[in-house]
Amino acid sequence: MALIVQKYGGTSVADADKIKNVARRIAATKDKGNEVVVVVSAMGDNTDKLLKLAYQVTKRPDDRELDLLLSTGEVVSSTLLAMALEEMGYEAISLTGGQAGIRTDAAYSQARIQRIDPERVVSELDKGNIVIVAGFQGITEGMDITTLGRGGSDTTAVALAASLAAEVCQIYTDVEGVYTADPKLAPEAKKLDEISYEEMLEMASYGAKVMHPRAVELGELFHISILVASSFTDNPGTLIHGGGSMEVRNKVRGIAHDLDVAKITVVGVPDRPGIAAAIFVPLAKANINVDTIVQNASINNITDLTFTVAKSQLDKAMAVVGPICQSIGAREYVSDAKMGKVSIIGTGMQNNPGFAARMFSALSEQGINIQLISTSEIRITCIIDEARVKDAVQALHRAFELEIEE
Amino acid sequence: MALIVQKYGGTSVADADKIKNVARRIAATKDKGNEVVVVVSAMGDNTDKLLKLAYQVTKRPDDRELDLLLSTGEVVSSTLLAMALEEMGYEAISLTGGQAGIRTDAAYSQARIQRIDPERVVSELDKGNIVIVAGFQGITEGMDITTLGRGGSDTTAVALAASLAAEVCQIYTDVEGVYTADPKLAPEAKKLDEISYEEMLEMASYGAKVMHPRAVELGELFHISILVASSFTDNPGTLIHGGGSMEVRNKVRGIAHDLDVAKITVVGVPDRPGIAAAIFVPLAKANINVDTIVQNASINNITDLTFTVAKSQLDKAMAVVGPICQSIGAREYVSDAKMGKVSIIGTGMQNNPGFAARMFSALSEQGINIQLISTSEIRITCIIDEARVKDAVQALHRAFELEIEE
Repeated sequence: MALIVQKYGGTSVADADKIKNVARRIAATKDKGNEVVVVVSAMGDNTDKLLKLAYQVTKRPDDRELDLLLSTGEVVSSTLLAMALEEMGYEAISLTGGQAGIRTDAAYSQARIQRIDPERVVSELDKGNIVIVAGFQGITEGMDITTLGRGGSDTTAVALAASLAAEVCQIYTDVEGVYTADPKLAPEAKKLDEISYEEMLEMASYGAKVMHPRAVELGELFHISILVASSFTDNPGTLIHGGGSMEVRNKVRGIAHDLDVAKITVVGVPDRPGIAAAIFVPLAKANINVDTIVQNASINNITDLTFTVAKSQLDKAMAVVGPICQSIGAREYVSDAKMGKVSIIGTGMQNNPGFAARMFSALSEQGINIQLISTSEIRITCIIDEARVKDAVQALHRAFELEIEE
Repeated sequence: MALIVQKYGGTSVADADKIKNVARRIAATKDKGNEVVVVVSAMGDNTDKLLKLAYQVTKRPDDRELDLLLSTGEVVSSTLLAMALEEMGYEAISLTGGQAGIRTDAAYSQARIQRIDPERVVSELDKGNIVIVAGFQGITEGMDITTLGRGGSDTTAVALAASLAAEVCQIYTDVEGVYTADPKLAPEAKKLDEISYEEMLEMASYGAKVMHPRAVELGELFHISILVASSFTDNPGTLIHGGGSMEVRNKVRGIAHDLDVAKITVVGVPDRPGIAAAIFVPLAKANINVDTIVQNASINNITDLTFTVAKSQLDKAMAVVGPICQSIGAREYVSDAKMGKVSIIGTGMQNNPGFAARMFSALSEQGINIQLISTSEIRITCIIDEARVKDAVQALHRAFELEIEE
């Protein structure tokens, strides 16, 4: 008998029929003799409906009130799922994040889990219950309700799996698993059977929408194996796990891409200590998430500094950068909102310069101009024109022979 | 500076514009220098929508799960109301029933308030906040969410008013107050400026839908003055208060009516001790609410026993009564689902037999047949044909001159 944590996303519980379908899958897991804890997201577009209501009464909803409002979405889907299981003759109980002991800080809308008090979940499991936990939410020491921000329900699931020492955390969603590239862009993309935490983290951070990097990180930290699979089929999915069983394969595992990229270049910056801080500290204070940063080698102590942000944050970022440019004596600052990002990801890449060469050649053969390059130990990312991202993903998929069975 | 508890019903917060309207009314109360605690119901038909979802996944929703599901409705309206107040520049905070310290027993779907721990509400008032409390809900010692059943939000409001020693509890709804009769049936009905708890209790119990008797009872118990008024106008409403300021007026105050009445008669019952218990104990165990009971004087030790139930409970009641009739040796049992109830209500009635005579004459003049009669100290009720209820209400309204200013 194993303890299994499952998570079902919003599209998997979008209506009563889909909830019943999920209940059947949970029941099958229970029937195999497992203890089951289920984390569930809000039904389909319920969160959007609640947000719309909030913006009908106020231009700027208070974070605390908004969290309490949005938290109701996951409570609704949790109770309905428990009812569907009971209708099938299974013992089930739904718990709010607070009841499940998910204790967070008070950073409303982006709360971090501080600890989990699993007593209630454990006692309900001991009674033979399937335990349904409302995802995406927690409770502060002061008993206020918080939400965990993006990737929240995945994070709830992995954190619960860690605190309960579950055998595996299964993330059920509307895709079949992690692919070598987005099948919408590269139809020949193949599903991966397994992937390491590090690789998945880079895939997730660089545009693969399957899972939020935050939950992957937590899985790595607590050594929780995470299975990503479809809630609509019985296909095996992709197992995200530790490197223990893996060798350094010197192989590109996947191509990630991101179309939500805007570029800002500060031109003609006097190259002296403190310049980077002068630019990026105010951006951080304005809650603007800066992604890739590249600084050119300086000529005559004058350099250019380029960075990328999400398109939705470009206007806000430009408003912050303007006054800074003046104060640091930069010549000008320019932006381009039509950028994209392609990355190749795989362990052991740093040891083999051949990967970078192959990537740049493949893009060059397609006449794709590389505007920025950034690398990590297991990733090489190129910022290119938005319009060429699809071509780039396909070219790289071919160049690294990802369509061929391992 | 007074502490005022206000309650707004579902129709008063049915959409964003109505929520903003309620926020303006609350703000006006705050502007007069009062501390304000607001109890709010779920938006319009939100509870019905949630119930529909539940019945889409199960034929018999579990009470605990259903309570947790339905409790989200009041959380949604509370948070939106707090946001609307903040948008207007007022400090406000919404609290769930649990956060507001509404502690109940674990009788899901019909929980009773055991006590209120008002610390959080008081501390938020001390910070200058308008405190919005989700109505209709509470929390058990085990931290499970309960709902209070019918009249729940009114009960939350009066209980909070009692525990906070509020000056008044204002129940805002979609009617102007308590009327001498239902204006839909008797267009000449007049709004009462004030009414005693006892009279209101009889009015509410005997069909006036303005307020649930449970909340009136609580008001009487804790000496909380309750104002019932419209949330859509600035008219003064009706004040429900203690008898201290009232003399026994020997006057009929109002006509109540109820169309949800079914009658069951057990015919030819051997009149011996224990017969009533043999019938009514099993009905109580089956959770069937028996209203008026009348037993005819027995002839040759054989009697008839008639009682009324809500129409929705008639089938269930007949199924219970069937086997009992056989075991007690009754001749037969018959039912009539098309009954109605009219009552005249007023303090001091018992001292003056003239009221009953006037009531029966008025009905007789209309050719209305009285099938059952039941009385209390301040009420006389007649069970009549459903089709004649409207005529009866109008005739009684005229007979007791309720259209004339006091």
